[in-house]
Amino acid sequence: MDTIISDETFMREALKEAQKAFDADEVPVGAIVVCNNKIIARAHNLTERLNDVTAHAEMQAITAAANYLNGKYLNECTMYITLEPCVMCAGAIAWAQLGKLIYGAPDTKRGFNLLKENKILHPKTEVISGILDKECADLIKTFFQKKR
Amino acid sequence: MDTIISDETFMREALKEAQKAFDADEVPVGAIVVCNNKIIARAHNLTERLNDVTAHAEMQAITAAANYLNGKYLNECTMYITLEPCVMCAGAIAWAQLGKLIYGAPDTKRGFNLLKENKILHPKTEVISGILDKECADLIKTFFQKKR
Repeated sequence: MDTIISDETFMREALKEAQKAFDADEVPVGAIVVCNNKIIARAHNLTERLNDVTAHAEMQAITAAANYLNGKYLNECTMYITLEPCVMCAGAIAWAQLGKLIYGAPDTKRGFNLLKENKILHPKTEVISGILDKECADLIKTFFQKKR
Repeated sequence: MDTIISDETFMREALKEAQKAFDADEVPVGAIVVCNNKIIARAHNLTERLNDVTAHAEMQAITAAANYLNGKYLNECTMYITLEPCVMCAGAIAWAQLGKLIYGAPDTKRGFNLLKENKILHPKTEVISGILDKECADLIKTFFQKKR
C-alpha cells in the first residue's frame, strides 16, 4: 500500500524552496510539483538573479514538470506553492490544465483571486489554500521587513 | 533626424515570426520588442517544440528583451504581437511594466480582454490594437483550417 504523504509535508518542501529564494535575496516563494506522490519538479523565484519578471517559481516548476513528463499537460499533478499565484502564473497553470493547486498564504496585492470575475484557472483544477499559511506568510513578511 | 518606422512595418516583423511558427506547425503567433526604434527581441510560439505551455511568443520576447537590456523592466519598450495576449502573457507584460503594447488580431477565446474587470495590465501601459489585424488573423485561421 502506498504511504499517503500529507499536504503539509509537501508544502514544507515548497517552503524549503522559498527559503532558498530568501537566502538568495529573492522574494521568497517556492513551488513543487507532485505526481503519483513523487516530487517531479522544484523551483523558487529567480526574478532578480535572472533579471526576468517571468521567472516566478510556478513558471519554472511548470516548465520543469512538463520536461520531466515529456508532455505539456499537468492534469495528473498537484502543485504546492507557498503563495497564492499571480495572474501570470494562474494563466500558466490554466494552460497546463493542472489537476490540483495547493497554496499556502494569500497574496492580497497580486493574487489571481483579486480578479473577482475569476475564470482564469481551468474549470477542472481543484484549489486548496491555507496549508502552512502562517509559515509561508511569515517568510515573506520577514523578507520585506529586512528590506525596509 | 531619426526615421520614424511605422507600426505596420514593425507588425510585419512580428508577422514574420508568426510565419516561422506556422512553418514549424505551431499556433502562428509572433512578437517583437522595439526600443528606440530598434528591434531588440524576436520570438514566436514554441509550445509544441518545447513541450511547454509557457513558451508563448510574448513570454520569450519579454525574457529576451530583458536579457538584451540587462534589466527586468520594459517601460521604454513597445511590444508588437500578432494576436491579443492571453491572461498569462498579459500578466507577464504587467510585471514587465511594458511601455506600449500593440497587437494585431483579437483573441475572442483566450484574450486578456475577456476578463472584463480588466486590471491585468500595468496602468501606464498604452494599448493599441488592430494593426494588420486581417493578416494576423488570416494566418491563424489558415493554420486551424489545415488542422481540421
